[in-house]
Amino acid sequence: MEVKQAIQERRSVRSYEKREVPEEKIKRVLEAARLAPSASNRQLWKFIVVRDQKRRRELAQAASNQNFIAEASVVIAAVGLNPSHIMHCGVPSYAVDLAIAVDHMTLIAVEENLGTCWIGDFSQEEVKEILNIPEKYKVVALLPLGYPADKPKVKSRRSLKEIVCYETFIE
Amino acid sequence: MEVKQAIQERRSVRSYEKREVPEEKIKRVLEAARLAPSASNRQLWKFIVVRDQKRRRELAQAASNQNFIAEASVVIAAVGLNPSHIMHCGVPSYAVDLAIAVDHMTLIAVEENLGTCWIGDFSQEEVKEILNIPEKYKVVALLPLGYPADKPKVKSRRSLKEIVCYETFIE
Repeated sequence: MEVKQAIQERRSVRSYEKREVPEEKIKRVLEAARLAPSASNRQLWKFIVVRDQKRRRELAQAASNQNFIAEASVVIAAVGLNPSHIMHCGVPSYAVDLAIAVDHMTLIAVEENLGTCWIGDFSQEEVKEILNIPEKYKVVALLPLGYPADKPKVKSRRSLKEIVCYETFIE
Repeated sequence: MEVKQAIQERRSVRSYEKREVPEEKIKRVLEAARLAPSASNRQLWKFIVVRDQKRRRELAQAASNQNFIAEASVVIAAVGLNPSHIMHCGVPSYAVDLAIAVDHMTLIAVEENLGTCWIGDFSQEEVKEILNIPEKYKVVALLPLGYPADKPKVKSRRSLKEIVCYETFIE
């Protein structure tokens, strides 16, 4: 599948089939995260693959009871190992690094006929407790991964005119 | 090009040919950013396309004199419009949203036979001044975009074993 098509077809999937995702597919999704660039190539990240149903249910509860999270046969938690590091530009590198890696996973997932959904609405403390993550680290996203049970409609987007400007900033 | 291949072939390109990137290619790169997901689909972002050579040189200077940035025929500045918003999980949404959009651009660029390089090593204040960006916004990345003058070697990455764990966090 072309990159362009994967970008166009990616959706926030909130309904999943029961069937399990084969291990080799999960591996290819994780490989996409592994190859992602990071600040100074430090790769200060960990990806926790959760398949246990009870644990997935707990994660869904910790994510404002978004129960579809537990429907997906896998949930991947993306964890930044150096959340206090700030880049020269003033932006925390963990948030950018982990977002890149997770974005890579969402796009390769489309190619694997799998659905994902970015989850940022969760309790950091509760997810850390469920997954036994040390306090000093930071979970950037939960990513359910599974076979989509439906195909959500395309969400509206602002036009290029609204989001692009040339040479200097124009509101 | 398959997503998998684009992920494998993406490099941090630090040397660019002089020839200009055609407008239609730039449009397709920006379209990839436009289609990217963002927190609550808010799309609080702006992408500034800089082609002016003098301005590109100024950006390179503001980025710790990484002169290759000015070599690329285009530099895109990715700007977050709501840098104070923090998601439920405690992570600032602007950093994640903009990283997703820029990652989309880096991958579609590979498909367009173009090179890019994530730049986070720059002075926020100087870039804002050069591009006339209001103080309240935040530049997350500069992205040079151009025809690669060479193909950098693959950078080493940690193994899957080092970065992946199952069910709960293991150091």
